[in-house]
Amino acid sequence: MKHFRFAAALALSVLFSAPVMAQNSFATTEAAIKYRQGAFSVMAAHFSRIAMMAQGIQPFDAKAALENAELVSSMSKLPFSAFTPGSDKGAPNRASSAIWTEPAKFKAASDRMVADAARLEAAAKTGNPEAIRVAVGAVGQGCKSCHDGYRNSSRAE
Amino acid sequence: MKHFRFAAALALSVLFSAPVMAQNSFATTEAAIKYRQGAFSVMAAHFSRIAMMAQGIQPFDAKAALENAELVSSMSKLPFSAFTPGSDKGAPNRASSAIWTEPAKFKAASDRMVADAARLEAAAKTGNPEAIRVAVGAVGQGCKSCHDGYRNSSRAE
Repeated sequence: MKHFRFAAALALSVLFSAPVMAQNSFATTEAAIKYRQGAFSVMAAHFSRIAMMAQGIQPFDAKAALENAELVSSMSKLPFSAFTPGSDKGAPNRASSAIWTEPAKFKAASDRMVADAARLEAAAKTGNPEAIRVAVGAVGQGCKSCHDGYRNSSRAE
Repeated sequence: MKHFRFAAALALSVLFSAPVMAQNSFATTEAAIKYRQGAFSVMAAHFSRIAMMAQGIQPFDAKAALENAELVSSMSKLPFSAFTPGSDKGAPNRASSAIWTEPAKFKAASDRMVADAARLEAAAKTGNPEAIRVAVGAVGQGCKSCHDGYRNSSRAE
């Protein structure tokens, strides 16, 4: 027990310098920004791999397509909670102020991403390249649409 | 089909400025660094949530514990491939040169992280708080050990 307490305290001290925080929230604005950027980076990398297969730039591999689609779907659920109030500032990031002035529209865009990514995962489970191609197209259009509306062209601090 | 091609091309152009690259590789060193940092950020956020439950800082919630443990386990598998040769430089990061001078030891540390995270997920599936606490302790010790050996105290460009 003592051993456990040491390890857990250690783990927390490695990860935080902040005091107690609510479950599913972030200790600092910077932590929220870092988290959502991290989730988007991982999502983009895996989406690109499946998109390259869909485009024929890489050979189709059903197993790899499914692994990538699962990660895209898993990551798609994460960023929304990290667009905390005021987090257009606090660390270099490109979040547009429209995220906070049009919360319902932004939530709808996030929901669309989650739904499109779930459809991509479902398509990948079928192993059907054509179904995957259609689903990749929808996710890609969602990326573009949301970036157009809610991502600034340059980073603010 | 034309519609699809447009969407997929768009998706790729949104994500890359680089030419064709191999599956599971990274277009640039900066992309590899960003990806591994992203995976670690997401993993750390979710590990902290389950660690706070294990420590009693947050009330135990079996469903949340499992969701967090699944994400920790999923993320633990990702960073290793992104420690590409020469990527101690290329973007601000804290990767120690020991990663590339002691590749077998670093691989073993990465394998330990993946195994410990899988055990945490298995513990969370049981819903047993004590099993989760033990597994959190092991993951936390692994974090500390790997950071001590392979993470610099300050960022190099």
